[in-house]
Amino acid sequence: MKLNITQKILLNHLVEGELRAGEEIAIKIDQTLTQDATGTMAYLQLEAMGIDRVKTKRSVAYIDHNTLQTGYENADDHKFIATIAQKYGIYYSKPGNGICHQVNLERFAVPGDTLLGSDSHTPTAGGIGCLAIGAGGLDVAAAMAGYPYYLRVPQIINVELKGKLKPWVTAKDVILELLRRLSVKGGVGKIFEYTGEGVKTLSIHERATIANMGAELGATTSIFPSDEVTCKFLKAQGREKDRIELLPDVGANYDGKIEINLSELEPLVALPHSPDNVHPINEVKGIKVDQVAIGSCTNSSYKDMMLVGKMLKGKTVHPGVSLVISPGSKQVLTMMAQSGILADIISAGARILECTCGPCIGMGQAPGTGEVSVRTFNRNFKGRCGTQNAQVILASPAVAAITALRGELSDPRELGDMPEVCEPEKYVIEDNMIIPPPIDRDSIKVYYGPNIIPISAGREPGEHLEGSVLIKVGDNITTDHILPSTAKLLPLRSNIPALAEYCFSVIDKDFSKRAKENSGGIIVAGENYGQGSSREHAALVPSYLGVKAVIAKSFARIHRDNLVNYGIIPMTFKKVEDYENITDNDKLVLKNIKESLMKGEAILKNVTRNIEIPVKFDLGPRQIKILLAGGLLNFIKQNFRGEV
Amino acid sequence: MKLNITQKILLNHLVEGELRAGEEIAIKIDQTLTQDATGTMAYLQLEAMGIDRVKTKRSVAYIDHNTLQTGYENADDHKFIATIAQKYGIYYSKPGNGICHQVNLERFAVPGDTLLGSDSHTPTAGGIGCLAIGAGGLDVAAAMAGYPYYLRVPQIINVELKGKLKPWVTAKDVILELLRRLSVKGGVGKIFEYTGEGVKTLSIHERATIANMGAELGATTSIFPSDEVTCKFLKAQGREKDRIELLPDVGANYDGKIEINLSELEPLVALPHSPDNVHPINEVKGIKVDQVAIGSCTNSSYKDMMLVGKMLKGKTVHPGVSLVISPGSKQVLTMMAQSGILADIISAGARILECTCGPCIGMGQAPGTGEVSVRTFNRNFKGRCGTQNAQVILASPAVAAITALRGELSDPRELGDMPEVCEPEKYVIEDNMIIPPPIDRDSIKVYYGPNIIPISAGREPGEHLEGSVLIKVGDNITTDHILPSTAKLLPLRSNIPALAEYCFSVIDKDFSKRAKENSGGIIVAGENYGQGSSREHAALVPSYLGVKAVIAKSFARIHRDNLVNYGIIPMTFKKVEDYENITDNDKLVLKNIKESLMKGEAILKNVTRNIEIPVKFDLGPRQIKILLAGGLLNFIKQNFRGEV
Repeated sequence: MKLNITQKILLNHLVEGELRAGEEIAIKIDQTLTQDATGTMAYLQLEAMGIDRVKTKRSVAYIDHNTLQTGYENADDHKFIATIAQKYGIYYSKPGNGICHQVNLERFAVPGDTLLGSDSHTPTAGGIGCLAIGAGGLDVAAAMAGYPYYLRVPQIINVELKGKLKPWVTAKDVILELLRRLSVKGGVGKIFEYTGEGVKTLSIHERATIANMGAELGATTSIFPSDEVTCKFLKAQGREKDRIELLPDVGANYDGKIEINLSELEPLVALPHSPDNVHPINEVKGIKVDQVAIGSCTNSSYKDMMLVGKMLKGKTVHPGVSLVISPGSKQVLTMMAQSGILADIISAGARILECTCGPCIGMGQAPGTGEVSVRTFNRNFKGRCGTQNAQVILASPAVAAITALRGELSDPRELGDMPEVCEPEKYVIEDNMIIPPPIDRDSIKVYYGPNIIPISAGREPGEHLEGSVLIKVGDNITTDHILPSTAKLLPLRSNIPALAEYCFSVIDKDFSKRAKENSGGIIVAGENYGQGSSREHAALVPSYLGVKAVIAKSFARIHRDNLVNYGIIPMTFKKVEDYENITDNDKLVLKNIKESLMKGEAILKNVTRNIEIPVKFDLGPRQIKILLAGGLLNFIKQNFRGEV
Repeated sequence: MKLNITQKILLNHLVEGELRAGEEIAIKIDQTLTQDATGTMAYLQLEAMGIDRVKTKRSVAYIDHNTLQTGYENADDHKFIATIAQKYGIYYSKPGNGICHQVNLERFAVPGDTLLGSDSHTPTAGGIGCLAIGAGGLDVAAAMAGYPYYLRVPQIINVELKGKLKPWVTAKDVILELLRRLSVKGGVGKIFEYTGEGVKTLSIHERATIANMGAELGATTSIFPSDEVTCKFLKAQGREKDRIELLPDVGANYDGKIEINLSELEPLVALPHSPDNVHPINEVKGIKVDQVAIGSCTNSSYKDMMLVGKMLKGKTVHPGVSLVISPGSKQVLTMMAQSGILADIISAGARILECTCGPCIGMGQAPGTGEVSVRTFNRNFKGRCGTQNAQVILASPAVAAITALRGELSDPRELGDMPEVCEPEKYVIEDNMIIPPPIDRDSIKVYYGPNIIPISAGREPGEHLEGSVLIKVGDNITTDHILPSTAKLLPLRSNIPALAEYCFSVIDKDFSKRAKENSGGIIVAGENYGQGSSREHAALVPSYLGVKAVIAKSFARIHRDNLVNYGIIPMTFKKVEDYENITDNDKLVLKNIKESLMKGEAILKNVTRNIEIPVKFDLGPRQIKILLAGGLLNFIKQNFRGEV
């Protein structure tokens, strides 16, 4: 049988099920990654599973989110993660060492491996040919405990890249083009596999930029071949041992195909407030800009920074612009410093931030009231930057740099020749901010700060589902809406009772109060509910507040899995027009939960309006068991002792 | 008459009064500086004074405090300051350009000039021979409006420096030695003027470190001569035009004298929680350390950073330590980057923060629960770092760097030879993050963000003073106790109603509520009340809450002036033992305020306990007028139209 890359990796890791689109399979996970915003909870859950050490080939705990540290909570969480990493045999990447996805590409990601990460941009590693999937922290904890990862086999879509990018057109424009064509839900249930002559013209980090923002399509993941470029990159990273060739068989089948001619692309930007609100730079240039932010896991590689540096050299940032730059990793920053380009960037008047996620997750550098911020990041959801009425525009580093100099959204092609930036033959390899686990782990004492509140066990559902509609929301609700992730709230990630006060606070200040008064209830939503960040807290917190079910037109993949993991039943309307037949405070009843779940469909009764609404579940047998157990942690504790 | 340096400058700027210790004089102010935490309010006040442009030789508005920017408030405040600076003819130093005192030394401070700054570490410029005084924002606004600055002539104390520092002993150890000898109130009412052979051995930045932390002695300011070293520094900064020689006349008189033999000093540290809790490193080395922070206006110069860089080069920060470094200015950071030392520092595993105050003011990098943090800063007051139970130790950059490598408080002398760091012949001069005011200021529109709440006029006192004791506090209460300055509260600096909720919250959560319920009242305090930061909000907020008087054993100078400026009557006990005769909630009455103030003393009646308590005021005629007008802003509006 002729296989594509995705199939090769899946088959190589298959533990249960058959490789047919839509079927549930279980795959072995080689590597895991966590970051500190999701990691604290993931490690509490790992601990609750009662194993001795992680069962993966490699697990790495990164600190890259909560690095402003305006209270004791963050430093305490970092110490918790550092010590529990030592205890369980996990590598620990210190704060300042870089953004997880960038460091992972540089030092850990292996072509052909599977990687599960508690961050929605884990697919970044697809740039190097790793099958990398974002998941909730509980799924990642289970993977660390040796439990396989369950997923529905996605459709595998071939994206054939032809031609070669013109000067000033970048990898960012490739993925923006795909977002323009497919929208933020165009990738749901899909893996994008990139092939074609154009792939060879892209460096690993350019591929990674594309794979990274595949998350914005709602895709399960994206993957590139492992070819000569990959091997050269691994050699330059001193990782010759990880080199393998991984190409699709000639004549391999796909579930669909998209063609992009790189030669025809032009610089694109995504206007507020969605990554798929894409326009050619020419149509929108001239918009006055207050802030430019360059960095994030999408565009903070050595090559990105070198291009920006060469564009800024000898010039001065516009007086009305605050230009902030957060390089992706210590490796990138060291090489910028050694090459002299960092001095040029500082000279031009840029503000150099730490090698962390920073402004991308609202961790500082919130724009002023109504200000326009051009960012090389991956998301421009309303309010994510920390300022509700700010206007965030997504762009490539080239567009961002010229915009910083001119003070208005500008087209880099007006600059003439594009500076040349070559991939280095040899990256600077130090790894001295990555602490390997010790041989003797017995003496390690895990540190628990006072902000770390132990997790409570999930509740099993009763025989019938009954509850009032606590909130009815529209389409494309993100996890940022469900549970905002601001500099103020991130330190509370391991303190669920405190965090619960902010559930849905962006759109409804009284949600938390109402949920508590009603002892929980039901959420009604439109299309693509739960898109955006992978944060499981967007399921964990509603679960804590007693939310029993979410009825939506459709779900984003990771969030749907997270709902199941936390014992909240996700269901979809059989007829989307029934969305109109439920409103706030309606009392809903669904009889015989167990039987309904097994059957895959049921009749939901709107008691208030006396309307019957057919719904479906689309859950695998394992997910049904999880829901009936009251969540994955209960299920694992009941069924699994850490051996695969 | 033979004059010392201080007398020469004071005489040269004298507008009113006679130069006798204790007499009130008025001096002309040549330059002003503000930072963004105090500046927003200062500029609102300047605006209320109704002038057309600043009357100073030079005024500079720096952004260095609120630079994490976790909400819209900071960026809005920065835009307010940027635009009002343009409107009134003020230089604007963009966020990222550096800490005000460091940039001021590099680019603006002039020997022989007077400088008034709305930051308690303004005396840093004494290192270059400038008479630089910290004051409340309102005083600085008045100075910008051309109003002279009033002060009681301090005692001028000669500090004669002999000998030369031994290797690994630094300027920080000189000022720690003085703090050890004199305590945090040893400098109240004094100016420290440095002379002697030892001065010549110190660079401008070493002198500035000493002058900077003179603030911790409670001193009005500290000053060094302008000599060959000064002239060489100014030349290296491209400021030949500012060079003057400024030395004390041979045989000049002083009000007191202190001798320090530099050759006899050794590395010192200040243990928690006061800068005068000073111990030789040998006595305390070995303490396990979690965090090391290098930077702040005390120790973030080129030479400080180069020494740290040379110590870190080729080594790795201890795995248990988070080392954060915030260089003092863009100039310093650029030169670090150009020299390659920045690459060495990054390689060693340090986290590079922006060129701002940062962790020194609790703006990020709060230590974890109970953690030990060694910092090159100037203050280690409890909670100032953002974590109430953290243990902050003040040290020199040399002690900090070796401690970061070893993970425990260490003595740098154990390293053998000290690396040599020379002053550069030529600093990198760019100034492209300093925006000069435009010629045409008419078209400038000042931007007001929604967090900027207009200031309300002060209340004139009634005929008699009556009120209950709202709180009784002990000795050495800092402005951090009165009004905490955390990352959470700094954005509220121009929103007094919101800020008022946090008055005294560190020691008494109900203070604000009680003050409102009582419609104000009286504060009772011990020695040195209001030491620490110059923040006028520690007077403005109590005034907003209706506080009418503070009765203390003694006051810190800037805070006492701030109380007067905001219409709160400062009085001291004639007999300190009467402190015991008042307690919480006692009702106090002082008859005939005006007459009492003129007389300089009065009988305060403790009605609750039926005790008479003699108090004194020690106020000049101008201060009495200010109090009777209900504060300085009212007074200026009534008496002054901007012409001196």
